[in-house]
Amino acid sequence: MMSDLKTAVVAIGGNALLRAGEEPTIENQIKNVRETAKYLAQMVKMGYDIVITHGNGPQVGNLLLQNEISKETVPPMPMDVCVAESQGQIGYLLQQMLTNQLRFIGIEREVAPIITRVLVREDDPAFKNPTKPIGPYYSKDEAERLMEENGWQMKFDEARGGYRRVVPSPEPIDIVEKKSIKRMVFGGDEQSTIVVASGGGGIPVVNQGERLFGIDAVIDKDLAGCVLASSIDEKFFIILTDVPSVYINFRKEGEKALESVTLEEIKKYQAEGHFAAGSMGPKIKAAVRFLENGGEKVLITSPENLIDSLNGYGGTYILQ
Amino acid sequence: MMSDLKTAVVAIGGNALLRAGEEPTIENQIKNVRETAKYLAQMVKMGYDIVITHGNGPQVGNLLLQNEISKETVPPMPMDVCVAESQGQIGYLLQQMLTNQLRFIGIEREVAPIITRVLVREDDPAFKNPTKPIGPYYSKDEAERLMEENGWQMKFDEARGGYRRVVPSPEPIDIVEKKSIKRMVFGGDEQSTIVVASGGGGIPVVNQGERLFGIDAVIDKDLAGCVLASSIDEKFFIILTDVPSVYINFRKEGEKALESVTLEEIKKYQAEGHFAAGSMGPKIKAAVRFLENGGEKVLITSPENLIDSLNGYGGTYILQ
Repeated sequence: MMSDLKTAVVAIGGNALLRAGEEPTIENQIKNVRETAKYLAQMVKMGYDIVITHGNGPQVGNLLLQNEISKETVPPMPMDVCVAESQGQIGYLLQQMLTNQLRFIGIEREVAPIITRVLVREDDPAFKNPTKPIGPYYSKDEAERLMEENGWQMKFDEARGGYRRVVPSPEPIDIVEKKSIKRMVFGGDEQSTIVVASGGGGIPVVNQGERLFGIDAVIDKDLAGCVLASSIDEKFFIILTDVPSVYINFRKEGEKALESVTLEEIKKYQAEGHFAAGSMGPKIKAAVRFLENGGEKVLITSPENLIDSLNGYGGTYILQ
Repeated sequence: MMSDLKTAVVAIGGNALLRAGEEPTIENQIKNVRETAKYLAQMVKMGYDIVITHGNGPQVGNLLLQNEISKETVPPMPMDVCVAESQGQIGYLLQQMLTNQLRFIGIEREVAPIITRVLVREDDPAFKNPTKPIGPYYSKDEAERLMEENGWQMKFDEARGGYRRVVPSPEPIDIVEKKSIKRMVFGGDEQSTIVVASGGGGIPVVNQGERLFGIDAVIDKDLAGCVLASSIDEKFFIILTDVPSVYINFRKEGEKALESVTLEEIKKYQAEGHFAAGSMGPKIKAAVRFLENGGEKVLITSPENLIDSLNGYGGTYILQ
């Protein structure tokens, strides 16, 4: 199917920035970001105005590790500040690579990353059960000290034989900077800005009385992307991932790529347990929520299949 | 004198974020940023739309130091990426504190830091003579290795007895994201966004053929602020610093605070050598350039004297 909506929020997966097993050097990150930026530039050339959101797993992990290793010399920053730093780091790389890929095909457009806070509920049940592992691995002694001193919760990781901090993963409720993002995308009579927003799922904040308070948590980037899309009234939400399509019976007998399905159909497959918790599950959850909140169309595909999918060949479309 | 222009670019000095000699802990940074945010919030209450820019000296220094200390475990990021991280870090703290100070006085406004690149000329003479010291101190052996391996230039610091990298400080020419900033400040019919832009003087980039290329350099934040103000057609540029006014014969016989001077008068004082290279000199240079490029009014004062100065009591105004 051809796409008629010419404006979209595009969520980029962690692998588009740093592939599994790759050393997190600047050279590798630039290589990967450049590759993804090439496809995004082609999408812009097709006439799309886009808002980009992205993961930050390996990057914020490395910032936390740098803070830990150098803590005797440089006072460490808390997690919300590290997420802000990762938004700066990844936002800049996307900004730079996309500017250049656009220039190579004759397009001069501004690309602007915005430091984005995402509101979560203080009484979100996730705060009672932290599940998301973050940052470096510690020995038992260190872990006990950190739990005592910082009030952290830590869990033993069998595979790596070390303790790791776990933080809550609350549900995103609202994008604090939504009006500013909207104004850059839709405001004015000039060509719209390509905005990079809500990186790493956004910096999680809660309302505490009158003030906003940053917290140590991780918001799922696809769910945050869905809230971002809804909050700026985008009708088209694109999730880029490792696979070209959504599959039922993935890697089992009867595996089948979905081409175009309705919200009702995808909810049926979801209920049947076709989408794994660690991989396609959260993306389908975000897609369903987006469509239930007034969105019109979701496309799930890989960066390499983005342009073909927009032209009607490949990818999985989920529609009302 | 009372101010009639109700929109301004405000440049915040390094001390407003971290006072000299203070440990760069998150607690100290929050305390200082909150204090400055209080005055900025009052300025907004007076009816001003503002764009904020800020220094990043201690913060980017610490990021470079963290990269150096943990380099065996985490591949270090280059300087342009560290500047981007510092824009995220400081931008978020300003965003958070200003949001809350505004809420305390009943104002709900978006505060949006934008990752900002600043264009410099590839043939800027500064590239032939790097002068700006950055990052950690090294021993002679380490310094020789780094000069050899990375092509860095390093200088011996008598006071600390160590070698330090020096980078160029080229002149800012243009703000790459100026249209996006303008759109957030002036676009739409709703209340304007309070934008934080060009932090740390911006991420320096040069045009290399078709592409933009990030470089290792430091742009003076007041000069970048002046280019920012001109590029978004702001007519009022405010520089916040450690002293309530600009002085002639500073800390000498005949010391006198300037209240209101013309561009011509300040240039005369400048030529007479009243403004020291390391402190007031660059601020006067930025003020002069702003007024010569179409700006109407510059105010130089301290954060504590900002509101009084806007009400006509104190500070130094420089006018056409």
